[in-house]
Amino acid sequence: PIDGQRLWDSLADMAKIGATAKGGNCRLALSDEDKAGRDLFVSWCEAAGCTVTVDRIGNIFARRKGLDDSLPPVVMGSHLDTQPTGGRFDGVFGVLAALEVVRSLNDRGVDTLHPVEVAVWTNEEGSRFSPPMMGSGVVTGVFTLDEILDKVAQDGARLGDELVRTGYAGEAPVDHPMHAYLEAHIEQGPVLEVEGKEIGVVTGAQGQRWYEVTVTGVEAHAGPTPMRLRRDALVAASAMVQAVQRVGLETAGDPCATVGILDVHPHSRNVIPGRVFFTVDLRHPNADTLADMDRRFRAAVAAIAEQNGVGAEIADFWHFPPTPFAKPLVDRVREAAAGFGFSHRDIVSGAGHDAVYVAGKVPTAMIFIPCEDGISHNEVENISPADGARGAAVLFETLVATAGK
Amino acid sequence: PIDGQRLWDSLADMAKIGATAKGGNCRLALSDEDKAGRDLFVSWCEAAGCTVTVDRIGNIFARRKGLDDSLPPVVMGSHLDTQPTGGRFDGVFGVLAALEVVRSLNDRGVDTLHPVEVAVWTNEEGSRFSPPMMGSGVVTGVFTLDEILDKVAQDGARLGDELVRTGYAGEAPVDHPMHAYLEAHIEQGPVLEVEGKEIGVVTGAQGQRWYEVTVTGVEAHAGPTPMRLRRDALVAASAMVQAVQRVGLETAGDPCATVGILDVHPHSRNVIPGRVFFTVDLRHPNADTLADMDRRFRAAVAAIAEQNGVGAEIADFWHFPPTPFAKPLVDRVREAAAGFGFSHRDIVSGAGHDAVYVAGKVPTAMIFIPCEDGISHNEVENISPADGARGAAVLFETLVATAGK
Ligand SMILES: NC(=O)NCCC(=O)O
Ligand SMILES: NC(=O)NCCC(=O)O
Repeated sequence: PIDGQRLWDSLADMAKIGATAKGGNCRLALSDEDKAGRDLFVSWCEAAGCTVTVDRIGNIFARRKGLDDSLPPVVMGSHLDTQPTGGRFDGVFGVLAALEVVRSLNDRGVDTLHPVEVAVWTNEEGSRFSPPMMGSGVVTGVFTLDEILDKVAQDGARLGDELVRTGYAGEAPVDHPMHAYLEAHIEQGPVLEVEGKEIGVVTGAQGQRWYEVTVTGVEAHAGPTPMRLRRDALVAASAMVQAVQRVGLETAGDPCATVGILDVHPHSRNVIPGRVFFTVDLRHPNADTLADMDRRFRAAVAAIAEQNGVGAEIADFWHFPPTPFAKPLVDRVREAAAGFGFSHRDIVSGAGHDAVYVAGKVPTAMIFIPCEDGISHNEVENISPADGARGAAVLFETLVATAGK
Repeated sequence: PIDGQRLWDSLADMAKIGATAKGGNCRLALSDEDKAGRDLFVSWCEAAGCTVTVDRIGNIFARRKGLDDSLPPVVMGSHLDTQPTGGRFDGVFGVLAALEVVRSLNDRGVDTLHPVEVAVWTNEEGSRFSPPMMGSGVVTGVFTLDEILDKVAQDGARLGDELVRTGYAGEAPVDHPMHAYLEAHIEQGPVLEVEGKEIGVVTGAQGQRWYEVTVTGVEAHAGPTPMRLRRDALVAASAMVQAVQRVGLETAGDPCATVGILDVHPHSRNVIPGRVFFTVDLRHPNADTLADMDRRFRAAVAAIAEQNGVGAEIADFWHFPPTPFAKPLVDRVREAAAGFGFSHRDIVSGAGHDAVYVAGKVPTAMIFIPCEDGISHNEVENISPADGARGAAVLFETLVATAGK
């Protein structure tokens, strides 16, 4: 029911904005490139006859009228921001598949009972500004608007100021009404490809716990300071990175344990590091197992600090528990995939998505498509046009079934 | 023979420039603060009747006429630049002790046969611009002028441009004639303090090998990427940091092994690091042992890269072999210390100093004084006024004995 070539062309046009050397994209949240991507999206939505509103956290909603326009909209969407060395499909695919559904509804003259909207959520990635999923978190009351407006980027910019600068400090209130929410996304992992499945029916998302660790040793000269007298913050922190890895390797199920940022102070070749800051990201589909990973991680950091004669402080930075999606809506995704004869399987999302926060407020489901070699958050991220078209088709069917005719 | 209070006051005045929160100094090479420190030094030298010249690499020479002014000068000196979180004495002590010697020669009306000079060498620390000891390295032909002028700082500035900007791109040629070179310095380690010695008679400096290591893994999403499929550059690099530490711990004698800089790319909380850059600094007084450390370090990096399925490239960045100082001059330092009745011991320098490069060209010696808790390259670096005065007195005697009357 959708035009796969038109979807593919739109993906290619969007990928020109913030294109990187190795074929990926850099459109960090609320950067000039993110603004350019948003502007292009808005122009496409207006051309498709939608009414565009922007809320106070910069989320964009492009609305196609419903037969009963007083009913709350069925919202489809995802995000346009990327990682610093991100791919062309993470987030973007969900937004442009949703736009393709609207274009296709127009082409076919299909009227839905509920209005239909395409949402672009602000700062899903959590890279330039942290944590992730800010736009959806504000709309669902997980975060207050004010705390998020005051977030400061790695580059020192304040989020509220960047909204104004890029022209996306909207006026709409942040308690956007929704009847249901549907998000199509690339899997970002290898499961569908390895098993040869065309569609992932996402039953929920695994839980996440993010931390910030600060290790404090004693700065000293790399030359005349004997090895046995050192309190090297980096030697201790590197043992902690190894311990985080072990927490991941020694957990049953599908655990993840990652250190993505590590900063050394004073950052001089001939100074024993006096302070190291690093981030930790632990994930598991099972809440008890995630709690156990948390305990083992904390114990390992404390023990390593003790052994190395350094201080270590762990700050809880962000978390969400394992989050199931709405069964009736998930069933509808499975039925749509089966209806087209697409091979499919149920799958738990390894990543956080705006759908995770929205699921706390309205019935929510996600549709995954395979990505090449399971690689995401990487410039080489790739999908096949056929997989993209299949995902958009399942989104179309699920949307129509949910929005009613 | 010197005025300890005047020396102490000058140290305190210099320490006001680039003062840091915790009582240290930040005068990174050729920064605004370094310029201000140099300007103050030049004003003091002119007040002491010296003629000041600056060479093309920005080294400053303040000259006091000799009885036979056609003879090459006996040069005393050190550096005024500091680490990012450096102390008030590293380098500065040697420069201001030398100035105090000149002031004292003036006070006492002592004329020397050879002219006497105080040298401030450009960028000894090697922190903002790397490697260290650039000014002395150019004068002694270890580096070419052009290669050093083209060095780029951590902050992106070009050294040649910073010389011009700060007013220290001098006109004097870089092959400065010297009869002998004397450098007073804080020990920067704990040996003198632990043994209760007042003066360290420096017999030479241990050898150093500096490296840059680049580890290349695969960037991927911290969520849906299974632990066993990861090629995490930081997990591998942190094992390498541990291995560098083991190279230090498992070497006999007085080894040093330090990782001072480590940078993670793409530096995002939810991205498995695809690339890590780090620096390594290995040191030992014995050339064969240092070569053995080099071999073990390389083998460990290769083995860890292999185990983790990542690439690792080691680039040789800088090195100098263990460097003995001139025996007659070292003997003269020992005699001067003994003459004053100062407790003393022979010691090998754990740090590199401009004296190391100058030793390759003219007879060279160094005088160490204790520093509190052996701590250097740290804002809390400290000395006692009495130790400072003793070091300057030994410098005075050695200078007079070398410059002749
Ligand atoms: N899809 C995605 O990359 N989300 C960012 C939040 C996370 O790291 O899970
Ligand atoms: N003295 C001193 O800190 N020199 C810098 C070169 C080195 O790290 O040894």
